[in-house]
Amino acid sequence: MKARVTVTLKSGVLDPQGQAIEGALASLGFAGTRSVRQGKIFDLDLDATDPVSARLAVEQMAKKLLANTVIEDFQIEILGE
Amino acid sequence: MKARVTVTLKSGVLDPQGQAIEGALASLGFAGTRSVRQGKIFDLDLDATDPVSARLAVEQMAKKLLANTVIEDFQIEILGE
Repeated sequence: MKARVTVTLKSGVLDPQGQAIEGALASLGFAGTRSVRQGKIFDLDLDATDPVSARLAVEQMAKKLLANTVIEDFQIEILGE
Repeated sequence: MKARVTVTLKSGVLDPQGQAIEGALASLGFAGTRSVRQGKIFDLDLDATDPVSARLAVEQMAKKLLANTVIEDFQIEILGE
C-alpha cells in the first residue's frame, strides 16, 4: 500500500526558506509571485493491504516522527497498491 | 492564483534522507514500512489570474530554480484563487 504524507507549516509560522525562494525567483526575473511557502512530502510503501489500517499507521508515524505538530500540519493520502 | 509544485527524486536516485526516516520508523516500532522517499512542495501565490499562463510561469520557475531536473521530477497543480 502506497501512501503520501504532505507536511506544511501552519499559517502564521514564519517560513524563511520560502522567503528566500521568493527573493530568488524575483531576482531571476519572475515578477508577480506574492508568496512562496515550502513543505515536505513523504512517500511511504507499506506492507499493510487494508487502506483503513494503513491510514491509522501513517497517522501515528506523522504524529510521532514525520511532522512537528506544534508548527506543522499534515495531510495523508492513501494511494493504493 | 495558487499553485503547488511537488518535487520528487527520480526513481533510481539514492535517497539517504528517506532511508534514515525508514530506520527511525523501524526503531520507533513501526514495522512493515518497505520504503520511504522524501520530496518537497512549494506553495506559490501568484498575481496571474489565468490558469494557463500561471502554469507556464510555474513550469519555468520549476525548471530554473525549484527542481534539479537532472535528479528530480516535478509536478504542477494549479489550485485556483
